[in-house]
Amino acid sequence: MQKKVTIAPSIMCADLCNLEKSVKEIEREGLDTLHIDVIDGSFSPSMPLGISTIEQLRKITDMKFDVHIMSNDNEFFIQEMLRIGVDQITFHHETSRHIDRYINLIKKHDTKVGIALNPATSLSVLEYVLPQCDTVLLMLINPGFATDKNEEQVSYAVEKVKDLSKLIKSKGLDTKIEVDGRVSLNTISGLVNAGADILVAGSTSLFKSDNSLADNKKRIEELILEGLYEEAN
Amino acid sequence: MQKKVTIAPSIMCADLCNLEKSVKEIEREGLDTLHIDVIDGSFSPSMPLGISTIEQLRKITDMKFDVHIMSNDNEFFIQEMLRIGVDQITFHHETSRHIDRYINLIKKHDTKVGIALNPATSLSVLEYVLPQCDTVLLMLINPGFATDKNEEQVSYAVEKVKDLSKLIKSKGLDTKIEVDGRVSLNTISGLVNAGADILVAGSTSLFKSDNSLADNKKRIEELILEGLYEEAN
Amino acid sequence: MQKKVTIAPSIMCADLCNLEKSVKEIEREGLDTLHIDVIDGSFSPSMPLGISTIEQLRKITDMKFDVHIMSNDNEFFIQEMLRIGVDQITFHHETSRHIDRYINLIKKHDTKVGIALNPATSLSVLEYVLPQCDTVLLMLINPGFATDKNEEQVSYAVEKVKDLSKLIKSKGLDTKIEVDGRVSLNTISGLVNAGADILVAGSTSLFKSDNSLADNKKRIEELILEGLYEEAN
Amino acid sequence: MQKKVTIAPSIMCADLCNLEKSVKEIEREGLDTLHIDVIDGSFSPSMPLGISTIEQLRKITDMKFDVHIMSNDNEFFIQEMLRIGVDQITFHHETSRHIDRYINLIKKHDTKVGIALNPATSLSVLEYVLPQCDTVLLMLINPGFATDKNEEQVSYAVEKVKDLSKLIKSKGLDTKIEVDGRVSLNTISGLVNAGADILVAGSTSLFKSDNSLADNKKRIEELILEGLYEEAN
Amino acid sequence: MQKKVTIAPSIMCADLCNLEKSVKEIEREGLDTLHIDVIDGSFSPSMPLGISTIEQLRKITDMKFDVHIMSNDNEFFIQEMLRIGVDQITFHHETSRHIDRYINLIKKHDTKVGIALNPATSLSVLEYVLPQCDTVLLMLINPGFATDKNEEQVSYAVEKVKDLSKLIKSKGLDTKIEVDGRVSLNTISGLVNAGADILVAGSTSLFKSDNSLADNKKRIEELILEGLYEEAN
Amino acid sequence: MQKKVTIAPSIMCADLCNLEKSVKEIEREGLDTLHIDVIDGSFSPSMPLGISTIEQLRKITDMKFDVHIMSNDNEFFIQEMLRIGVDQITFHHETSRHIDRYINLIKKHDTKVGIALNPATSLSVLEYVLPQCDTVLLMLINPGFATDKNEEQVSYAVEKVKDLSKLIKSKGLDTKIEVDGRVSLNTISGLVNAGADILVAGSTSLFKSDNSLADNKKRIEELILEGLYEEAN
Repeated sequence: MQKKVTIAPSIMCADLCNLEKSVKEIEREGLDTLHIDVIDGSFSPSMPLGISTIEQLRKITDMKFDVHIMSNDNEFFIQEMLRIGVDQITFHHETSRHIDRYINLIKKHDTKVGIALNPATSLSVLEYVLPQCDTVLLMLINPGFATDKNEEQVSYAVEKVKDLSKLIKSKGLDTKIEVDGRVSLNTISGLVNAGADILVAGSTSLFKSDNSLADNKKRIEELILEGLYEEAN
Repeated sequence: MQKKVTIAPSIMCADLCNLEKSVKEIEREGLDTLHIDVIDGSFSPSMPLGISTIEQLRKITDMKFDVHIMSNDNEFFIQEMLRIGVDQITFHHETSRHIDRYINLIKKHDTKVGIALNPATSLSVLEYVLPQCDTVLLMLINPGFATDKNEEQVSYAVEKVKDLSKLIKSKGLDTKIEVDGRVSLNTISGLVNAGADILVAGSTSLFKSDNSLADNKKRIEELILEGLYEEAN
Repeated sequence: MQKKVTIAPSIMCADLCNLEKSVKEIEREGLDTLHIDVIDGSFSPSMPLGISTIEQLRKITDMKFDVHIMSNDNEFFIQEMLRIGVDQITFHHETSRHIDRYINLIKKHDTKVGIALNPATSLSVLEYVLPQCDTVLLMLINPGFATDKNEEQVSYAVEKVKDLSKLIKSKGLDTKIEVDGRVSLNTISGLVNAGADILVAGSTSLFKSDNSLADNKKRIEELILEGLYEEAN
Repeated sequence: MQKKVTIAPSIMCADLCNLEKSVKEIEREGLDTLHIDVIDGSFSPSMPLGISTIEQLRKITDMKFDVHIMSNDNEFFIQEMLRIGVDQITFHHETSRHIDRYINLIKKHDTKVGIALNPATSLSVLEYVLPQCDTVLLMLINPGFATDKNEEQVSYAVEKVKDLSKLIKSKGLDTKIEVDGRVSLNTISGLVNAGADILVAGSTSLFKSDNSLADNKKRIEELILEGLYEEAN
Repeated sequence: MQKKVTIAPSIMCADLCNLEKSVKEIEREGLDTLHIDVIDGSFSPSMPLGISTIEQLRKITDMKFDVHIMSNDNEFFIQEMLRIGVDQITFHHETSRHIDRYINLIKKHDTKVGIALNPATSLSVLEYVLPQCDTVLLMLINPGFATDKNEEQVSYAVEKVKDLSKLIKSKGLDTKIEVDGRVSLNTISGLVNAGADILVAGSTSLFKSDNSLADNKKRIEELILEGLYEEAN
Repeated sequence: MQKKVTIAPSIMCADLCNLEKSVKEIEREGLDTLHIDVIDGSFSPSMPLGISTIEQLRKITDMKFDVHIMSNDNEFFIQEMLRIGVDQITFHHETSRHIDRYINLIKKHDTKVGIALNPATSLSVLEYVLPQCDTVLLMLINPGFATDKNEEQVSYAVEKVKDLSKLIKSKGLDTKIEVDGRVSLNTISGLVNAGADILVAGSTSLFKSDNSLADNKKRIEELILEGLYEEAN
């Protein structure tokens, strides 16, 4: 049986002044997971949207909320997301002192937990926490710098996904691999082929401005199939 | 001639999933200033809305943006607001080391500048910066704790507005006094009477849920007149 | 009617390996208030005793706990002291951003609240918070450096107590003045005369090693009377 | 010859108001090592006991002081412990920038040195410092959260001890493995079997309230033997 | 008798690759005080010269070293300057928690002590420390931004010097007033007239590139006389 | 063909009051690379020389500037060095959150990039960034403590250089290995033999006071040859 690859549209690419309309459009395309970046302006010089916005959004859609926290105070933001009620909370290893504790906090609320790694961070940091995670999110550009057009996907993106995929299999786990950062029409099949399970889809794929959401989605699905097919061989 | 008192609706009280619609409604009531709180989650445990949201909002309305930054890194947020293009930037004295520099930065962009003070902060800190400011914003609850229903307006609200008003007059200035925090139907006339020029209007006044925006606005305007009338006597 | 001056023995001077015995001795002398310093090692390079120790102490004595927090994270330590149940919580103005909020937090638990000022801190910072405080604690040496024998009481100790006393009277308040730091047999009558209400008593007064606790206490009481008598004249 | 496993009673579980009595009882049971946690309230939301308490304790017992620093300013606390005179100082890798320097500082005072790792921290961080350490302390719960009853020993406790034991042997070293966090009657034999040399004994073993100290100690010793015996096979 | 006004050349304007030669030239002009800025890059985005440079400089000249520390860790830099041996140490009020302690530290080494204030900082912060200081340094531009050509001297420079002068006289003190920041040929006589005692002389006065050091010095001395003469009238 | 080993004289050992003369002397010896330490006093308690000094130095010599940043705010210092124009910028892994971004920033300016590791830091952190680096700098004493005579080169210096050399070869890269800290006449041949390419030369080699610069240089070159010869066998 073929594995399922999830397309997770990034809310940063939605129409932020008409979020309800924007999210309903995404829903209509049959997508069920919304990727939500929470950045505090200090971890990275960016703060896309606020907690109050997420709170109101939670009330008008049943989509799964896949929250990616990029902050220097993970415990605060984790507690806020648990209060709002989301489906998965991913926090960065680089800013977490009590990783095991955050994992416990999240799991106790029947919420999925992910750990995010900056591009340069080694997989060796996952040694003991990998089995506790539902997901590992690999940043493929430096987090919070998405609007800097000079930031390209790191050259070792596919290699790192492959390494992580191997590590997960070697431990007999089924942790999901989420990829985030210039996951574009040019890179999707390679990333899927390398082992990516969840694709954060933004301005270089699902929200590519020259096509409709529907057409972009169709194209992404074809690329996913290409990636999976190559894998099977 | 009677002085003008500005009602500045707080965007935190708008429908954050339908901001365009919400702002258009406010515009239709003839209000021309939008009060926008930027909180980083670290200065206070709150982060109402994001920078990207403000950026998109800027493109769909001509309302004046009156931005109140509550952060630990004022220079970053000031630069972001200058990039977006807003009409007034207010930052907190308590988290600013190079106040004079921030004032210069803002003025060089033909943007109005305000200094915000926490409830407990003395007016004596304004000694040399008052003449450089267009506005002084007095927080009447602890900033960032608006959603905590136990937070009441400080008992010395009117006294502090009066003191500031006296200080401004004694220096022959026309600095505006902005008041923020439980500026409710019960407190407006007193605050205006004490000298307030700009009222940040939220859930206890303009967005009071039991009435329409139009009715609330009408009631506020009556209370402002009451406050001004008493003053005149 | 003569005003009451409280002697508050500092727990730092007790026998920390036999706290129960030490506190019972203090109780037997008819003293009803224990001054407890909570220092985090970061605000000042000192950490006299732990939270767990205070928690256990709370269970074995009915003395009033007068807690003086010297920390960089006042909200954490205030919450801990409220959890334990103490009678007065004093925190430093210099490390507090949301002073009004901390006051509210403490008062909501029917606990007395004090604000502490470092020696060099001006009284002007008290402008709006003085009426909210039960006590103002004036540090007369730099907080946390008590064990440095070179640290002497600041030369302006009496002057600052007098200034504060005047300020309190001018506002018609009855805020208590607590003095802390080398409150010795040589300085007590002068400080009381200047307006001090609560004396933090340590190694230079109540715990002076050449006399018994009882004798020291008697001597302090005489000095208090001297101070009060001079005041009356 | 059978290896020696040390039981290190945690002072946090002693009677903090009668420390002298409590420590004498422990001494009478023939235990010679006292485990002392120094937490600054900032690394973790906990501050069990103060530096002054440790200083006074040092003067009334000859037990070995095995100090575990959990702080954000390791150099300060290391210097304080060296001043007091303790037998082993363990600091956390996660909060240390100049690890090699701290090791040198401690060794220059003929004091043993340990490095502590949070549960989630990989052993790969020990690559170059392992040979410089007398001890590696593995936290088996998140440090500073011992009073949170929901915090259970991490599921990978035994696995991590085994991995560390293997690493030490592979380098031909005799570094001691210290385990800390819910080292209970249920887990001791497994941990010893995996390679633990020093057991931090708290409320779930030596200080279990339903038995005397003597009985608990006897039971622990039996469990240690079980662990060692299994190992030998 | 006319008061003496000191010209303190700023080492930042010297030839940093030929400091010995540069300082000897200054000496030859009969100037006896060198103003040395120590900035850590964090208080302000600038780091003109290093501690090691000052240390070597100390060995080759007998000029008085008037050190102005602009840092976030004043105690470290004060200790370093005391170790090197300088004549006056000035630190910023805005980044000092234990001001009284730093004053004591410096005085114990028979070194003069100054407190520096940012442009926007009120004089009210000096209430209790003024009598302990030899000097108060008023920053007339934002400290550390001297190389930003857009930074002009604050408009309230003369007013603030006058206010400080009045405050000093009202307390019967003879604290020196040092002024720093665009102390130029255009502003010197006004500042001296207002009460300035020490002029930090940089690229807009002593080091003005269109004239020799000697000529610039002569011109400054004339302007000082003008300022003093006006004062006398 | 024999590999080239670079001697990089540390500017900290030059005559800081006569830098131009000192650098010209170094140039005359045929050395073409200057090692420049930038320390902020916070990463380590040291601040050898300032940014302004480097800026002026850049204008009077054509030597290559090999800058080693030891700071807590790498982005600021990287930007400053790029502004000045240097040849290689090395920053510490331990204080860098967005490593990949800093690498990009530096490369975009056609400047070589290095990553520095503290003695205790594992090579595993280099997993994904090694191919992006021109150089890896291994600190062989704790950075910033060079003036502490008690700080010796770490015992595992040669081992770590060998490990890194093996890692570089295993990935088919030609990353240079730079060694810094007590690179003395006693240790040079061993370090070169282990794989070092760039030797930071200070007071224990090139600037050894009992010999001339020329003689020291000659001796170093002999030791390099020894190291290389042993390697070849």
